Amino acid sequence: MRKIFFLVVATLMLTACNNQTQTTMKENNTEPVLGLGEVVTDNFTGKAWLKYLSTHPETTDCLIYNVTFAPATRNYWHTHSEGQILICTEGEGYYQERGRTKQLLKSGDVVHIPAATEHWHGATPNRQFTHIGITPKASVNQVQWIGEVTDEEYNNAIK
Amino acid sequence: MRKIFFLVVATLMLTACNNQTQTTMKENNTEPVLGLGEVVTDNFTGKAWLKYLSTHPETTDCLIYNVTFAPATRNYWHTHSEGQILICTEGEGYYQERGRTKQLLKSGDVVHIPAATEHWHGATPNRQFTHIGITPKASVNQVQWIGEVTDEEYNNAIK
Repeated sequence: MRKIFFLVVATLMLTACNNQTQTTMKENNTEPVLGLGEVVTDNFTGKAWLKYLSTHPETTDCLIYNVTFAPATRNYWHTHSEGQILICTEGEGYYQERGRTKQLLKSGDVVHIPAATEHWHGATPNRQFTHIGITPKASVNQVQWIGEVTDEEYNNAIK
Repeated sequence: MRKIFFLVVATLMLTACNNQTQTTMKENNTEPVLGLGEVVTDNFTGKAWLKYLSTHPETTDCLIYNVTFAPATRNYWHTHSEGQILICTEGEGYYQERGRTKQLLKSGDVVHIPAATEHWHGATPNRQFTHIGITPKASVNQVQWIGEVTDEEYNNAIK
């Protein structure tokens, strides 16, 4: 009888533990409204996903895509020769231009990244972050990747 | 004693009624993630809001804005000489091109409206609808408003 009791308790504990794991996994990889897309690795520190929303640059001359950063993930320092626009839709992130303190980004924020300006963006340490990215003048807008954002740079104070 | 009883019942009924009204108002005017902006009236049937997200067309050559339609609201038949992109973020809406059956739009859907193509978009009868609109090639992209979407057109079957 005692054996059955322990079996039942152990099963209940395992079930509870499994449910908790599933909840945590779901929280860490929440599907954004516009979709996760494919994993990207080049020029990112951590785990990020990219989903193209518009691939008609031959008619529209702008590229539109959804980028999702796992917590603590960021891209490398880089420039866009014609600038870029970020529309923050979910979670919490950072944006920093070289020589300036980094900014905290929340859903609803819009960032206009000026042409040829060195910068990076990514998630805060504990929150997934999603933004739409818009590359205007796509036919001539060149990206130049410069180098990794160090942990020291990432952990610097926000403004 | 009976008077006090009726007073208490009447107060409770009024409170319940007031709470219901507040809930209904809140449901009908939910603030979208990217903001409601200002009420627009021209070329819309019903109530709609417009919030510009990017007004740097001189450097980016694209206009980005958030449009929210109250339930049953739609814009007039119109064309964009260089096309338009809609990114549906909240609620449920319709999109129709002249001569085609209308489409149901849900959050996550992206619509590429071809250049010079007569169309309209708006909310479903019972749901508020929000999309981001992107006007590419803004310096040369002309809008031409044609005329109201009739109730008959609006109520036609969806595909």
